[in-house]
Amino acid sequence: MILNSADLIDLCRGAAFLGTGGGGDPYIGRLMVEHAISEAHPVEIIDPSDVPDDALVIPTAMMGAPTVLVEKIPRGNEAVLSLQRLERHLGKKVFATMPIEIGGINSTMPLVVGARLNLPVVDADGMGRAFPELQMETFNVYGVHGTPMAITNEYGDCTLIETHDNKMMEWIARGVAIRMGGAAYIANYPMTGEQVKRTSVPNTLTLALKIGRCIREAREAHRNPFDALLNLLPKTPYNFGKIIFRGKISDMFRETRAGFAAGRARIEGLGEWKGVMVIEIQNENLTARVDGVLKAIVPDLICILDSETAEPITTETLRYGQRVTVMGVAVPPMMRTPEALAIFGPVGFGFTDKFTPIEAMD
Amino acid sequence: MILNSADLIDLCRGAAFLGTGGGGDPYIGRLMVEHAISEAHPVEIIDPSDVPDDALVIPTAMMGAPTVLVEKIPRGNEAVLSLQRLERHLGKKVFATMPIEIGGINSTMPLVVGARLNLPVVDADGMGRAFPELQMETFNVYGVHGTPMAITNEYGDCTLIETHDNKMMEWIARGVAIRMGGAAYIANYPMTGEQVKRTSVPNTLTLALKIGRCIREAREAHRNPFDALLNLLPKTPYNFGKIIFRGKISDMFRETRAGFAAGRARIEGLGEWKGVMVIEIQNENLTARVDGVLKAIVPDLICILDSETAEPITTETLRYGQRVTVMGVAVPPMMRTPEALAIFGPVGFGFTDKFTPIEAMD
Repeated sequence: MILNSADLIDLCRGAAFLGTGGGGDPYIGRLMVEHAISEAHPVEIIDPSDVPDDALVIPTAMMGAPTVLVEKIPRGNEAVLSLQRLERHLGKKVFATMPIEIGGINSTMPLVVGARLNLPVVDADGMGRAFPELQMETFNVYGVHGTPMAITNEYGDCTLIETHDNKMMEWIARGVAIRMGGAAYIANYPMTGEQVKRTSVPNTLTLALKIGRCIREAREAHRNPFDALLNLLPKTPYNFGKIIFRGKISDMFRETRAGFAAGRARIEGLGEWKGVMVIEIQNENLTARVDGVLKAIVPDLICILDSETAEPITTETLRYGQRVTVMGVAVPPMMRTPEALAIFGPVGFGFTDKFTPIEAMD
Repeated sequence: MILNSADLIDLCRGAAFLGTGGGGDPYIGRLMVEHAISEAHPVEIIDPSDVPDDALVIPTAMMGAPTVLVEKIPRGNEAVLSLQRLERHLGKKVFATMPIEIGGINSTMPLVVGARLNLPVVDADGMGRAFPELQMETFNVYGVHGTPMAITNEYGDCTLIETHDNKMMEWIARGVAIRMGGAAYIANYPMTGEQVKRTSVPNTLTLALKIGRCIREAREAHRNPFDALLNLLPKTPYNFGKIIFRGKISDMFRETRAGFAAGRARIEGLGEWKGVMVIEIQNENLTARVDGVLKAIVPDLICILDSETAEPITTETLRYGQRVTVMGVAVPPMMRTPEALAIFGPVGFGFTDKFTPIEAMD
C-alpha cells in the first residue's frame, strides 16, 4: 500500500499507543515523513511475505532519550546516512528498510528513509512495541546479529560498530548516542528476508494504522473510543486489553540518566478508581502498581491515554494534572516465550517480579 | 635499526621521561613488546626520511586512563586489530606504523604492532611528549584528519569512527573507550609519508632511547643522573632543561573522571627547596606552581623523577612519601607555534595562564 497523509496521522496515533509511552514524539516524526514525501517519493509499505528470502533489509531508527528530542530536532537525513553507510560496508544493495520498534518517532523514521531513498518499508518491527535498549528486540531473541551497526548525528559524523554480542552493541552505541548529544540515528540488524519473516513481529505498521483509525473514527462518531479500542484488540494478535486505572496525575519524577528518560508517574484515582497508581518508566512505561499491587508489567503494554479523547500520551509529555486512563494490553505469544522474557521481560529491567500476563492479573 | 632487548629497557625509561607522567605504565608496554618479538618478528625502527611520500602510515596507541591499565591488562592484539580494520576500510596496504605520542605504553604500542605484523615503526610521533586528548597532536595542528579511526577492546569489539573534525573524533572515541572499560586500543590519523615528514615530531623514539640510556649509564658509572640529563638535553631538539623543585610528596588527590586520570600532587620542599609545589594532572603533568607561582606549564615537559635514581614516575604510581625531583624541559619550536599552543597550550586545558617557556621562567 502507498501511505497517504490521513493514514499517516492515524498511524502515528496508533504507534504512540503501541509505543507504551516511548519511542519519541510522533509529531516530529510525522512532520519529517511529510517533508520527505513532499521532497522525494511516496512511501510504499509491503508485507513481510513480499520480501525475497535472500534480499537485504536494513532497519532504521532514532536512538536516545525521547526527552532530548523535544529540544534537539533532527536534521532529517541522519538515518538515511546510517543506512547508506551500512549498505556500503556490506557491499550489497538494500531491498527495504523497516522499524526496529513500533513506537512514536521510531515507527516513522523508516518511512522517512523509505521516502528519501525510494525504498519500500516492511510492515513489521523488532519489538512489537517500544523498548529502551537495542538488545530488547525479537531480532535478537531469535538469533539475528545486531552489528555491523551505523550511528549518525546531525553533522554527518558516523560511527560503525561491530561487537561480539548485541548487549555490547547496545552498550557501545548508547555511549556514542550520549556523546552525540543524547539522540542519534541508527541502522542495525541488517538481515535477510528469511530472517525478517522468522524473527520480526509482523504487520505492526498496519496495526498501528488500524488502532489510530479506530480511535479517530470513534471520536468522530461520538462513540466511546475506549470501548472501540477494547473491541478492536481481540481481532488482532494483541488479543486482550483492559482498563486498569483512571485518575489524575498528581506527581511526575523525571530525569535524563545514562542516556535514558527515566521517571515515575503517580496517578490518584478518580470516581470508582481508588488508591494511587505508580508507573515506573525507562523511556517506556514498565510497571503499573496500585497501592503496591502489580496491575501490569513489561512486556505487556501499559498505555496512558487522555481520559477524554483516548489520545496516547508519551512519557516525556506526561504532566501534573492530566486526567488519564491506563490500559493494559497483551502482547503476541512470540514476545512471551521464555527466551523473549529473558531479554525484555521484568528481569531485563532489573525487576524481581515474575511476569504475569495482563489477562491473568486481578 | 633493529631494536634489541637492552635498548627496549632504555627506550621505555626515556619514554616515561618524555611522557611527562602520562601515556600509561611503560613496564606493561615493555612486556608486551618482548612477548610480541619472541612470538613474531624483530622490530625495525626507520627514519621518517625513509618513508616514501605516497606510502600509507597508520599510527597505533592505547587510549584511556593510565590508572585503568594497572588492573585491566591488554590481551595484546587489540591495536593490531584496529590497524587491520583501518587498512581494510581504506583498501590500501599499510607501509608502517608509528606512535601518536612518545610516552609510557604509547611509545611501545606501535612496537607491538610492528613485531606482530612485521611492519617497520617510524621514528617520530604526533605529540613530542604525551597529551591526554587525541586532537592534541601535531598531526592535527598541521592539518591531518584524524579519522577514519578504529578502536578495539580485548573482546575484539571494534568501532570505526568518522567525524567532521578531530575534536569530535576525540569526544566520540573517548565515549567508546569509557564504555570499553576505560582503556582501549586505537589506530587513527592514517596518513601519507609526506604528511608524516611534515607534521610529526621527528626522531622521538631514538631520543627516548638516548634519554633512557643516559640515565642508566650515569647510574652505572656512579655519576649524577640529573647532571647527565641536563648535559644531554642541549644536544637534542628539547634543548633546555632545569630542575625546578625537590621534595617529598605530602598529598595525592586522584580520581578517574570522564575517562581520564585527573589529580593533583603536593610536594613539600626539602633542603634548599622551600615552600610547596602543586602539580595539576590530566593523565599528564600540566602545571607546576610553588606557593602559587608558576614554574612550568604545558606543553613544556614537567617530569617527576625519583630523587635517588632519576627514574621517571608516571602519574598513576605517584604516592605519599616519595622523594622526587621535578625537571622542566623545553619542547621543540614546532610545538610552541601559535597554532600548536591554541590546541595543546594552557588554553587547551582550560588554564587562564599565558604560556611562558621554561627557559624564561624565574
